[in-house]
Amino acid sequence: MIYNAPIKDIRFVLNELADLPSVCALPGYEECSVDLVDAILEEGARFAEGVLAPINRQGDKGSVWKDGEVTAPEGFKEAWRQYVDAGWVGLRAPADFGGQGLPALVAIAAEEMWCSANLSFSLAPMLTLGAIEAIHHHASDELKQCYLPRMSTGEWTGTMNLTEPQAGSDLAQVRSRAVPQEDGSYLISGQKIFITWGEHDMADNIVHLVLARLPDAPAGVKGISLFIVPKFLVNGDGSLGARNDVRCVSIEHKLGIHGSPTAVMSFGDNGGAIGYLVGEANKGLAYMFTMMNHARLGVGVEGMAVSERAYQKAVEYARERVQSRAIGSPDAAGVPIIRHPDIRRMLMTMRAQIEAQRALAFYTASALDRASAHPNPAERAASQAMVNFLIPVVKGWNTEQANEITSLAVQVHGGMGFIEETGVAQYMRDARITAIYEGTTGIQALDLIGRKTAAENGETARRLLEEVRGTAERLGGLEDLSLFSGNLKTAAAEAERCVAYILEHFAVSPALPAAGSVPFLKLMGIVLGGWQMARAVLAVEKMAKDGEVDDDFRQAKLATARFYAEHLLPQAGGLAAAIVEGGQSVMAMDEALF
Amino acid sequence: MIYNAPIKDIRFVLNELADLPSVCALPGYEECSVDLVDAILEEGARFAEGVLAPINRQGDKGSVWKDGEVTAPEGFKEAWRQYVDAGWVGLRAPADFGGQGLPALVAIAAEEMWCSANLSFSLAPMLTLGAIEAIHHHASDELKQCYLPRMSTGEWTGTMNLTEPQAGSDLAQVRSRAVPQEDGSYLISGQKIFITWGEHDMADNIVHLVLARLPDAPAGVKGISLFIVPKFLVNGDGSLGARNDVRCVSIEHKLGIHGSPTAVMSFGDNGGAIGYLVGEANKGLAYMFTMMNHARLGVGVEGMAVSERAYQKAVEYARERVQSRAIGSPDAAGVPIIRHPDIRRMLMTMRAQIEAQRALAFYTASALDRASAHPNPAERAASQAMVNFLIPVVKGWNTEQANEITSLAVQVHGGMGFIEETGVAQYMRDARITAIYEGTTGIQALDLIGRKTAAENGETARRLLEEVRGTAERLGGLEDLSLFSGNLKTAAAEAERCVAYILEHFAVSPALPAAGSVPFLKLMGIVLGGWQMARAVLAVEKMAKDGEVDDDFRQAKLATARFYAEHLLPQAGGLAAAIVEGGQSVMAMDEALF
Repeated sequence: MIYNAPIKDIRFVLNELADLPSVCALPGYEECSVDLVDAILEEGARFAEGVLAPINRQGDKGSVWKDGEVTAPEGFKEAWRQYVDAGWVGLRAPADFGGQGLPALVAIAAEEMWCSANLSFSLAPMLTLGAIEAIHHHASDELKQCYLPRMSTGEWTGTMNLTEPQAGSDLAQVRSRAVPQEDGSYLISGQKIFITWGEHDMADNIVHLVLARLPDAPAGVKGISLFIVPKFLVNGDGSLGARNDVRCVSIEHKLGIHGSPTAVMSFGDNGGAIGYLVGEANKGLAYMFTMMNHARLGVGVEGMAVSERAYQKAVEYARERVQSRAIGSPDAAGVPIIRHPDIRRMLMTMRAQIEAQRALAFYTASALDRASAHPNPAERAASQAMVNFLIPVVKGWNTEQANEITSLAVQVHGGMGFIEETGVAQYMRDARITAIYEGTTGIQALDLIGRKTAAENGETARRLLEEVRGTAERLGGLEDLSLFSGNLKTAAAEAERCVAYILEHFAVSPALPAAGSVPFLKLMGIVLGGWQMARAVLAVEKMAKDGEVDDDFRQAKLATARFYAEHLLPQAGGLAAAIVEGGQSVMAMDEALF
Repeated sequence: MIYNAPIKDIRFVLNELADLPSVCALPGYEECSVDLVDAILEEGARFAEGVLAPINRQGDKGSVWKDGEVTAPEGFKEAWRQYVDAGWVGLRAPADFGGQGLPALVAIAAEEMWCSANLSFSLAPMLTLGAIEAIHHHASDELKQCYLPRMSTGEWTGTMNLTEPQAGSDLAQVRSRAVPQEDGSYLISGQKIFITWGEHDMADNIVHLVLARLPDAPAGVKGISLFIVPKFLVNGDGSLGARNDVRCVSIEHKLGIHGSPTAVMSFGDNGGAIGYLVGEANKGLAYMFTMMNHARLGVGVEGMAVSERAYQKAVEYARERVQSRAIGSPDAAGVPIIRHPDIRRMLMTMRAQIEAQRALAFYTASALDRASAHPNPAERAASQAMVNFLIPVVKGWNTEQANEITSLAVQVHGGMGFIEETGVAQYMRDARITAIYEGTTGIQALDLIGRKTAAENGETARRLLEEVRGTAERLGGLEDLSLFSGNLKTAAAEAERCVAYILEHFAVSPALPAAGSVPFLKLMGIVLGGWQMARAVLAVEKMAKDGEVDDDFRQAKLATARFYAEHLLPQAGGLAAAIVEGGQSVMAMDEALF
């Protein structure tokens, strides 16, 4: 189960499509350079390939819960120690508390490799970084000083305690309680579910971020506050103190990501867990929102990364497995199945989408960096609008397609794909969570048509589609690419038609565009992915002219982009028709008749 | 984990779309009647719901292998006993050896229920019937008399031993040996893999059908013979004799269908397993082909049936789970998620495809019955051509969509869908095998464009598409159905365009249409499924005029058909574009560059 980090494409996307040099030039990122990033990529690849990938299958056997303690899968604790020692946790953690403060764009390239190598493992740093971000943005200096340095190293990990049995997508239903104490702390009680890495033995302490309600809090989302609840209390001198009243009641038996324990956490069974308010009371949900973009982008990367791993496995099998003669060949001898057209179609379907998704995700990360660090406020605002629109697309599209792509990888293996020892089924099981957690695809799609499209009168959507058309125009000037150019223009026009439909109906009959919201999200994914592939073609052709790209890379990129244009872009019309003409029929059947 | 057999729709499809009355009127099926079928459906539903469905989750824990013996999951042995006692095995087994000899159309309705209730369990009778069919068509009277009576009751089960490690899709590579003995029997040796229910403790004997080569056999598919190799030899008086030299070496650890042991079988480790030649030497593969249509249709039904079960589970959860306010509602109170448009879209996507697939599968079964029993040879031939074309579509499309549909069922459950105890993930895992075994989707699609389209110059394809257009025409005359009619005509025209493309290129550059063969299979599935939904609308409207249908059924059918027309038929254009314009780009990239 080898993993080869796709460094070449990552570097190409970073430099040519996501404009790494200009990100490195942003204020605050002065220490970042293309050379430094190259070194990070190489070290990261070595770590992902050599340390994390080999224990991924072992992780599938799962963690073990016993009397409230959780033992991570064999090899995970040692790998975590190495990961901490190498300083990987703090890559994008704030520099003022021990992190390296690198741009999101750089961090995401490393994160792709962790996720491909070992999705379950990668969730520990991912969650820790989310907690760091929330604390850094909103907590008091005292809390920051207490928690961030050791979270940035990874000595302590972090978790997000949002979901409760009755409060999944709808956090307004959160019931956990927080009672103020005289010393300024709070006593937290309640039960939380689906807590990734909620309990484990890899780190000395676990810093839980918990959503709960104060006694006098208003109902709904406006009455939720955010608390730090450490597993072990921290003494004034920074040493670990008493065990807090928070306990892992059980861990879930899941379809995938078995390596990462998903905990049911109970707070305050013995009087109350001691917690510390982050920022102001009743602003917990708003604080969660500030870290949501990073988190959702991260999950989009997870989907793409598992797809990449599954793709590599499928290619490897397709090269080795000999079966049946080549079609149309007089020679009866079997050939490696990679020569069979349908196997090739599956591999290209995987490859084309993965490359497009990587480009779109990295492009979004680049916008995220500009939105936070660009010196020009107008540029910041424009980048933020771009980020806001792209995030649900990247999260939703990458993860929905991860289901398809990892399933195709199983299919390439034929009967062997169904046998767990082969290993490819694990990628399909692991990927399946990505379209669910951190906001299901349905939640992403509602966000996309509502806050990100209708609420701003479609401005960003149209700006993006205008860029797509411009790229398509330029593409049309190149030899052999008129079909690509035409398909991209047509797809963009279909998307434009859907934006108009959403704007027309959202205020009056929101159920109509909502009924087509996921198809719209997929349509935007296909169009924007096609746009990135077109940008890739333009970039690679320019590099070829300048003698800056090797022939193999160019040939592969061109072939992959053409496949995307001919096989994926044409799906736009069917999706648009369903969105524009199919709204009524979604809701037409009487509820009782299902 | 309740299962409610969808008797109403099954009955509607049988009577109105698959013309059960005319099947019952065929020579040989005189004892079959609509009333008898009604009784079978009701009894079958009771058995599926009451006996098989409740042990499906238990089955997921798997069978146990020990020292060559396999113990079926808890409850399976008892259920098998009840199944045998009730006479379910022999429903479509030949009447001259103890079966009931009912039409395929009737059997398939019962089989849908077994598969929905418990896919793993259903494979035991499915394989047994396949073995019965092969023996009945090709073995000597003596062998028939020895094996069929007790297989038809289910006292003995049957298996198919085709696959070897190096011979999966390509059976030309089969290496197992058969050496003739003086008494007319053969000594069989070799290893077979992926043998469903290859060893278990539910029946007294297991009758293995085994592909092997005689010493003087020609290479390739023309040198494969078919043998009966019983687990226990059968004495002259019918009693069981010595244990044969065939052993279950291990069972596989699989992604799904854990309840059915998938065995690695070793023949002849101690001198040779005694086997009996079925029919003539070197005709084994041809004999396999005669039962292939039934088997592939059966797997298509499996895909649809698991989808139905997953759909029911998703509907149940969507009714119970309360989360978030209704879109556009001023009332902040949460509503059952079935009221949210995207949940509804997912449920309708599932429902519409399942109904179309059921109709298409049953329609095919009806043609199968006419092909074998119609008194008019021309009618038999025409029906056979229809069957030949439809089988790969039903097998491929139903099972590919089963992957999507069962995944949607997980999605409807949100985070709970990922938890194994919820039970819905099992349907997704179970369904995953159906697009692989009995010929992968790629194999079905090659068969469809080659033998079933190009080889007969597209005759059946065009005849079918002509029928589709006729139905669309009639539909256009009904109120509110012009969009459906138009979309169906457009989709049929797209399919026609692809048929022309296949005919144009298959002889000269077969790799081109092969590259689009799976998209073509899916396109045909969408068009023919849409056709069946259109036929359903016409039937239900006629029934309504005659006062023969209840309003609820009519409303549901109309709404579901409209959804199909507006959300699924429009996908035809994108698929056709990929087929007609994308053939080159599938194979364009140098193999070394993957």
